[in-house]
Amino acid sequence: MKNMRTESNRSLQEINPGILLDRIRAESPLIHHLTNWVTIYDCAQAVKAIGASPVMAHAMEEVCDMAAISSSLVLNIGTLTIDFVEAMKRAATAANKKKIPVILDVCGAGSTSLRDQKCKELLIETKIDIIKGNYSEIARVCGENVKTKGVDSSSIAMNIKRLASGLAFAKKCVVVVTGQEDIVTSGKTAYFISNGDKLMASLVGTGCMAASVIGAFAAVEKDLVKAAVSGLVCFEVAGELAAKKSNGPGGFKVHLFDSLYNLKRVTVSRMQRIKC
Amino acid sequence: MKNMRTESNRSLQEINPGILLDRIRAESPLIHHLTNWVTIYDCAQAVKAIGASPVMAHAMEEVCDMAAISSSLVLNIGTLTIDFVEAMKRAATAANKKKIPVILDVCGAGSTSLRDQKCKELLIETKIDIIKGNYSEIARVCGENVKTKGVDSSSIAMNIKRLASGLAFAKKCVVVVTGQEDIVTSGKTAYFISNGDKLMASLVGTGCMAASVIGAFAAVEKDLVKAAVSGLVCFEVAGELAAKKSNGPGGFKVHLFDSLYNLKRVTVSRMQRIKC
Amino acid sequence: MKNMRTESNRSLQEINPGILLDRIRAESPLIHHLTNWVTIYDCAQAVKAIGASPVMAHAMEEVCDMAAISSSLVLNIGTLTIDFVEAMKRAATAANKKKIPVILDVCGAGSTSLRDQKCKELLIETKIDIIKGNYSEIARVCGENVKTKGVDSSSIAMNIKRLASGLAFAKKCVVVVTGQEDIVTSGKTAYFISNGDKLMASLVGTGCMAASVIGAFAAVEKDLVKAAVSGLVCFEVAGELAAKKSNGPGGFKVHLFDSLYNLKRVTVSRMQRIKC
Repeated sequence: MKNMRTESNRSLQEINPGILLDRIRAESPLIHHLTNWVTIYDCAQAVKAIGASPVMAHAMEEVCDMAAISSSLVLNIGTLTIDFVEAMKRAATAANKKKIPVILDVCGAGSTSLRDQKCKELLIETKIDIIKGNYSEIARVCGENVKTKGVDSSSIAMNIKRLASGLAFAKKCVVVVTGQEDIVTSGKTAYFISNGDKLMASLVGTGCMAASVIGAFAAVEKDLVKAAVSGLVCFEVAGELAAKKSNGPGGFKVHLFDSLYNLKRVTVSRMQRIKC
Repeated sequence: MKNMRTESNRSLQEINPGILLDRIRAESPLIHHLTNWVTIYDCAQAVKAIGASPVMAHAMEEVCDMAAISSSLVLNIGTLTIDFVEAMKRAATAANKKKIPVILDVCGAGSTSLRDQKCKELLIETKIDIIKGNYSEIARVCGENVKTKGVDSSSIAMNIKRLASGLAFAKKCVVVVTGQEDIVTSGKTAYFISNGDKLMASLVGTGCMAASVIGAFAAVEKDLVKAAVSGLVCFEVAGELAAKKSNGPGGFKVHLFDSLYNLKRVTVSRMQRIKC
Repeated sequence: MKNMRTESNRSLQEINPGILLDRIRAESPLIHHLTNWVTIYDCAQAVKAIGASPVMAHAMEEVCDMAAISSSLVLNIGTLTIDFVEAMKRAATAANKKKIPVILDVCGAGSTSLRDQKCKELLIETKIDIIKGNYSEIARVCGENVKTKGVDSSSIAMNIKRLASGLAFAKKCVVVVTGQEDIVTSGKTAYFISNGDKLMASLVGTGCMAASVIGAFAAVEKDLVKAAVSGLVCFEVAGELAAKKSNGPGGFKVHLFDSLYNLKRVTVSRMQRIKC
């Protein structure tokens, strides 16, 4: 027990979201997206506010070229079509070749069989480096029979750590599960983040933006567990700061972008709530 | 005359937008959209702010599955293509089978022959439960030779009640006409709403959001006249509250989402302006 | 030298952005867009806030009809596909026939060979009246071997005026180059604008919105150099006003729309910084 605690503390000290934040601002990496049509603007703005350069490009004829000049690739199946997923596969294959990280937001997994099928195909036909979803989406990707409707059943909550670890282990990737407490796991180690504010759930697109911000962190840090934890922490700390000034989702969105833009390393250090 | 007034009062008492608002928040119904690419985010956020769960899905292969788990379906032809309308027809057919209400926003009807043709097809090939448009759009769907350019000619204004009633009667549906005074008619009864603020016309997407909010109300109330009146009233009362704090369309949008999110039953009751 | 200065002053006096702004509000011209899916809402809202009427329509079967009732056409290749560019060509051909101005934002030119190829095709197969881009995008359209990643190399900055003039001359069009100092050139005369604020670069979509606002000015002024200079000046003056009230991109966007909506002719006259 004592050894484990020491191990945990050492691991925690290795996570420094603020340093990676400054690295993003110094390097301004290009983050290529094939994302959700609902939240496409917000994904781009979140990435830009944090200090990286977003680019959205989905034409079959240019996704490889765009991936080739980018530092990470973010995919989101929120408004998928068959053709769009084919472009995702092509982009991911190019990203795999160039060895830049690929983040997949399994948005809406479990709601239709098309989504389940296309998640499966993406995970088999390409190498996904970070899989991100909420409790029920990740449970569904793990093969559980859940109904996705934004609501997380308590039985899933109890098993989700085990499911996420198993998925990460099987796919040799990092799995990010967002919820009241977020989980980031490589299958071997797991981190738990309890930053954020309940207003985040009132705003359309916070989940998609979180994946995009993680994409920006993955562009500057090879250890993808660190990158994912750091991205989530920075995004959620910005969310907490924004929530303090807000009275609803309209004001919250305005302040979220301003908080991401003005986020300081020292503020992140002070506010981050990570467990191991 | 006396009898009619009594009849009207009785009808008015049956309309209680605030009660339906609370029902939406209790049930959080899923509202499936195939909507306008310009305003897709705002439709989703308006529906979420009022307390329902938006989902946007247009892939031919999943629209039926999505309609099958939803409580209403909102269609909007604002940025239509032929394939997109085919997906709408498929979704509407699934919604008809499941007996969930289908709302059609005839956005831009009259501006091109494609829009006129596709409105016609949707109204013939599927059962639309609520048709929503502004004065000139609805007049056009009724076969009038109007030019849609956002401006409502006064001659249409004079005839619109008769036209809308005729359309509702012919199509056995509810027709919603938005303008300075909104009309909701089943062909038999008609209600007139004079809530709202002129800043609403300065914001792109208020018409689309109104249709989506009506979709949320139609998901919890089988009497679609009541649902449409209630949805419009709540949306426009939120607009009035937002306008008081705003100096232009930018601030107005922020406050509109916050007002929808914080809208109270008692406030709606106090501010609603419905005539019969 | 003295003659040139006199000539310059005369030219400057002919530019009156505030008068054109009032003309837009009086006429409310319809501005047809085939634009970027990321910023489509913002392009529409900027155009509406300035007093014109935006319409977004891309279906192959209606782009000609829509162009035929519009006063200008704005194209943006930011999220191009091959089919989408075909619709652009069809719309531009209809606009050319109707003799309404066509504005092309060469968003992302230089980042992939698809973008370069499609810019070339649009410029050869249709008559583009105003080409707009940042330093590196315009340099690329001129055939320079630049890498577009949002960053402008200083060597381009030195040559950009010559490049832009050459392009304008060769294509018999107006070229708009945005940057710290904007350039508007017909190949013969050139204007330089130094309005704007650095917060504009922190907001996704300011470039796209600038093109759309120029589209609104081109709809009411046949001299397209005057139209482009006036559009840029009004947009950037609104940006300066907004920046004074803002602390980041979230607040800036809100105030930008409000400033465009409330922009006064006298304010523009007082704040405009145009050189010849």
